[in-house]
Amino acid sequence: MDSVDGGGGELAVVPADLFDDVSFLLARANALSLAAGNAALGAGGLRVRSYSVLALAAGGRRPSQRELAELLRLDPSQVVALVDDLQSRGLVIRRPDPSDRRANVVIATEDGRIAYAAAAASVSEAQNNLLGGLSAGERTQLAALLRRLAFPG
Amino acid sequence: MDSVDGGGGELAVVPADLFDDVSFLLARANALSLAAGNAALGAGGLRVRSYSVLALAAGGRRPSQRELAELLRLDPSQVVALVDDLQSRGLVIRRPDPSDRRANVVIATEDGRIAYAAAAASVSEAQNNLLGGLSAGERTQLAALLRRLAFPG
Repeated sequence: MDSVDGGGGELAVVPADLFDDVSFLLARANALSLAAGNAALGAGGLRVRSYSVLALAAGGRRPSQRELAELLRLDPSQVVALVDDLQSRGLVIRRPDPSDRRANVVIATEDGRIAYAAAAASVSEAQNNLLGGLSAGERTQLAALLRRLAFPG
Repeated sequence: MDSVDGGGGELAVVPADLFDDVSFLLARANALSLAAGNAALGAGGLRVRSYSVLALAAGGRRPSQRELAELLRLDPSQVVALVDDLQSRGLVIRRPDPSDRRANVVIATEDGRIAYAAAAASVSEAQNNLLGGLSAGERTQLAALLRRLAFPG
């Protein structure tokens, strides 16, 4: 039966208030952050995901594609596509991983480091706008709390 | 040229430390939250997105499809697809919006409220696991900070 709650149905299901729901707030804050990041990156042809791969490749850590997938919580196939795209634009190269010759590490080229530096300035400005309502202390506090969710244990 | 940073290239680009980067931490925490939510919902045939629509439809607010899109930061076409899916399973119905006859509001059926109540218990348990490392006070603090990002102004 498709009976509809007239306002005081016998189940009296009261959904948890979304405005106190950390998962909902995380999803919405992340959506706004992604939109702001993509808008800031707009002109340069990067998106937040490819920018994140480029940032890690430019950081001197020489991440493997597996490490990129784990860190960014993407499917390995998504990482391959992102690295393919960055490589086709001359921003990164793949090299065999010295610690596992079957795997590749991803390294930014000089062009990639230049593109990263330019994009990082735009992204940083967008993040400042996103966090504009928070004091420096509150930003540190938020980062510390999020870090405990993002890297449990 | 594809010259590669040998470790101390002249650009000396040092990426902002990702572990202090709120946008990165948001994205990663949200990815873990989504994965945990989807795993918790697994058996019932709902996913986090359709669950969110059902939660709002079951909350007695009678959201329009436009309000759902805005609140959940989805494209209107995604909301239509999610509502179609929930409607085909008898969990919600559409009714003309009394305040705008060209628009529809989405209302949970009795079956939808039952399905929501069952799913909410699983999702709440998954969220408790996600937040397991935080005290009650820290959870409140995190929600308050995220709310300011998620609903600026």
